[in-house]
Amino acid sequence: MPSFGIVIHGGAGAIAKSAMTPELEKRYHDGLREALTAGYKILESGGTALDAVQKAVNVMEDSPLFNAGRGAVFTNAGRNEMDAAIMEGATLKAGAVAGVRNIKNPIDLARLVMEKTPHLLLARDGAEEFARLNGLEMMPDEYFFTENRWQQLQKAIELEKKRNERSRSGSESDSEQKFGTVGAVALDQSGNLAAATSTGGMTNSRHGRIGDSPLIGAGTYADNQTCAVSATGHGEFIIRAVVAYDLSALMRYRGLTLVEAAEKVIFGRFQELGGTGGLVAIDRRGNIALPFNTPGMYRGHYLQGKQIETSIYKE
Amino acid sequence: MPSFGIVIHGGAGAIAKSAMTPELEKRYHDGLREALTAGYKILESGGTALDAVQKAVNVMEDSPLFNAGRGAVFTNAGRNEMDAAIMEGATLKAGAVAGVRNIKNPIDLARLVMEKTPHLLLARDGAEEFARLNGLEMMPDEYFFTENRWQQLQKAIELEKKRNERSRSGSESDSEQKFGTVGAVALDQSGNLAAATSTGGMTNSRHGRIGDSPLIGAGTYADNQTCAVSATGHGEFIIRAVVAYDLSALMRYRGLTLVEAAEKVIFGRFQELGGTGGLVAIDRRGNIALPFNTPGMYRGHYLQGKQIETSIYKE
Repeated sequence: MPSFGIVIHGGAGAIAKSAMTPELEKRYHDGLREALTAGYKILESGGTALDAVQKAVNVMEDSPLFNAGRGAVFTNAGRNEMDAAIMEGATLKAGAVAGVRNIKNPIDLARLVMEKTPHLLLARDGAEEFARLNGLEMMPDEYFFTENRWQQLQKAIELEKKRNERSRSGSESDSEQKFGTVGAVALDQSGNLAAATSTGGMTNSRHGRIGDSPLIGAGTYADNQTCAVSATGHGEFIIRAVVAYDLSALMRYRGLTLVEAAEKVIFGRFQELGGTGGLVAIDRRGNIALPFNTPGMYRGHYLQGKQIETSIYKE
Repeated sequence: MPSFGIVIHGGAGAIAKSAMTPELEKRYHDGLREALTAGYKILESGGTALDAVQKAVNVMEDSPLFNAGRGAVFTNAGRNEMDAAIMEGATLKAGAVAGVRNIKNPIDLARLVMEKTPHLLLARDGAEEFARLNGLEMMPDEYFFTENRWQQLQKAIELEKKRNERSRSGSESDSEQKFGTVGAVALDQSGNLAAATSTGGMTNSRHGRIGDSPLIGAGTYADNQTCAVSATGHGEFIIRAVVAYDLSALMRYRGLTLVEAAEKVIFGRFQELGGTGGLVAIDRRGNIALPFNTPGMYRGHYLQGKQIETSIYKE
């Protein structure tokens, strides 16, 4: 078994092969490899799982390709509102932020909440105020503007009008764009686990909507006794099924392996409720799982003694 | 076994007997009885568990005694920011709001989010906008002003200054005041479960802090297959231990009874992490549990065929 490693995702959904070009596919693979390598280097040099997942998520937040940080989608009001959470498996300490704007790297803010406040989750203007107090890097609205995200919003609004059904817009084919997320889980050389998730939320969401990513137990969880998990997909279903903690509970209480538990979580109640999405997970022995019930999930892993691997579609 | 019933709490903590008068104790018992009776009547006449928990919480929100709605505590900035969540055990549908101001009954807003939006959790100004759009009753700041809550904030700020330790203020003896919450769980005649939690948050909290109450899985959970749970106490620990869902998982995956699972949750990891608080829970057969690891918890239950009961301190 590998003594350390990292697993990441860049969102799950109906990634349409028809809308892809070889160039765009390559950009996604490159983006995933860059994130994996950044995290892996930290682990390789004896750094913590916490630092590794934060760094890997930073790389994806800085890329316009993924729905997090710079590439965040637009809410119905045309704003970028971002959520993030980070958790340390050794202590069960966690930090999270919800609905923040203009923060270059929301995952860094989540970590600051964990380390510098007695609170766990800070939202919106309160979180932004805390970011400014701590000198976190802020970016103007233009930094977060990406043409294709803007077009996604216009399409979603158009569809919504046609259906006249509030916020249920979006065809299957754009679900990835609507619910994209980035996340990372890692095991370090000391045997500690950590998980991090960051997202730009949901295209065309109502002002103030918080999804699963910043909610400990739903989109993010890490416990050295079981595993580290980061989920992605339709957030409301991930919350109702308490996806990340459910995986941990299945290992802890029912004795399932990481892979068994991960499959049961995604293809069990979450799917029965109507949820679409996936997750990445790693346990203390370096076992990994990357299940999803969508046509694709941007994903990859880099484990000690093994090749770096990235994938987009189902095998 | 009773075929229907309701269990409520009005916050757990170091309720100081010395600070109590017989008159004040009576007011608490009366408040709890009023909430229980309001919920029980709905169940008795064949109404849903969802309606019953909402109504019981409404009564406590309308009372200045409890830290929810009218009696909400003050944040560091001297504001009242409230959170609430409601969940239906038959469908696993849920709705929640976080950091809302001037809403008379935050639990009603949580239910509207559940029923009228595709989202699960709405925060702050976005949630307030949604409340206004739906004609929910709003109240001016004065309605939420309670002299003793204001004095609690002043004391907490004073203590914080002395300790020079940001937001870690508050002696053991005021922890109830800091972390109070109200909640209700019910079983109706159709065998359906529901849970609801509402809170005014934490005295002297940093602007934008969200606690466990609105987080599905942490402070609130309901699943007909297992139980309905509403937690109260130090929210950050409730989130890290995923208290409400952990109880459900222990029943579902390890086959524990409701009472066994509830005790394990409160006196297990939650307490080991340093958490103080309690919960109320009910299962489909009408078994109930009300464990807490604090000196007191305002609580009560009203089950078919049994007397109404309310308590404050440990037996």
